[in-house]
Amino acid sequence: MMLKVPPPSLDSALDTELDPALFREGMSRVAGAVHVVTTDGPAGPAGFTATAVTPVTDTPPSLLVCVNSSGRSIKTLLQNGVFCVSTLGADDELVAETFAGRRDLNGPDRFTVGTWDRSKADQPRLKTNLVAFDCKVSDARLVATHHVIIGEIIAVTLGERRSPLIYQGRSYHRL
Amino acid sequence: MMLKVPPPSLDSALDTELDPALFREGMSRVAGAVHVVTTDGPAGPAGFTATAVTPVTDTPPSLLVCVNSSGRSIKTLLQNGVFCVSTLGADDELVAETFAGRRDLNGPDRFTVGTWDRSKADQPRLKTNLVAFDCKVSDARLVATHHVIIGEIIAVTLGERRSPLIYQGRSYHRL
Repeated sequence: MMLKVPPPSLDSALDTELDPALFREGMSRVAGAVHVVTTDGPAGPAGFTATAVTPVTDTPPSLLVCVNSSGRSIKTLLQNGVFCVSTLGADDELVAETFAGRRDLNGPDRFTVGTWDRSKADQPRLKTNLVAFDCKVSDARLVATHHVIIGEIIAVTLGERRSPLIYQGRSYHRL
Repeated sequence: MMLKVPPPSLDSALDTELDPALFREGMSRVAGAVHVVTTDGPAGPAGFTATAVTPVTDTPPSLLVCVNSSGRSIKTLLQNGVFCVSTLGADDELVAETFAGRRDLNGPDRFTVGTWDRSKADQPRLKTNLVAFDCKVSDARLVATHHVIIGEIIAVTLGERRSPLIYQGRSYHRL
């Protein structure tokens, strides 16, 4: 049986859904600073590596973290309602790998890598941070597979001025 | 007359609103890739420089741009409903400065700097991009002074593999 197929439109390239592999390859070309997002509170300590962190507004000072909703750490973070973003220097690649889950350490065990202290909001903070932001969750919104979390910043620590850790082309770089 | 002042609480550092200048200094320590976000359509051409760009999800492929709501370019972008994000290489600092509004060029005049072609979605695209993402606006949300725009990606162009332009410590760097 013949099926009637509509003629291809000029817009056909835009009508088909984009290949997720091409999207990921495209995003791998974009350089990003590397952060660890950590939390502690009634739900316990947890943390994960993130490059998807951006400032939002300075009234009130806020930032945004985008994170896969399937991980355990994000559930803990949302339960605690408070978190710290530590921006990594070039020497903290091992911390980045650990909190990205590439060293088979989970939950509290991840904090055995790196040097940690407590922030003003009593959150785990990487002591060798370039800068750290204490945040309380002001909004968390599910967008398909990910949560877009907006954190109102309640404290900022300025660390030493050293080379940042940069992730691009699926590898780490220093500036 | 004496006023009764409550005793300082242990949490006082967290109860006071964070100084926006400290927030901006903190954010200046975070390295970021530099992009130009451009648009064309019924409302005309416009564009601006952005570092606050992150991937959101790959189902469907989406990214997020955070931009000050007071600019003219954002209004044009929302009217057109479509835009292109071109990620800049280290040699395109002048394009970054132009689209950041630091060279007194506005609207279509900004496109006299840099080399431009048209993307699949018929948007202005920087020809020397490292990667470019055509997007249609799938959500735009006002957060105080800024818009958080989620764009569903409808096309990706992979450019040449060259050093990205990085902004950190209020100056430009190459990787």
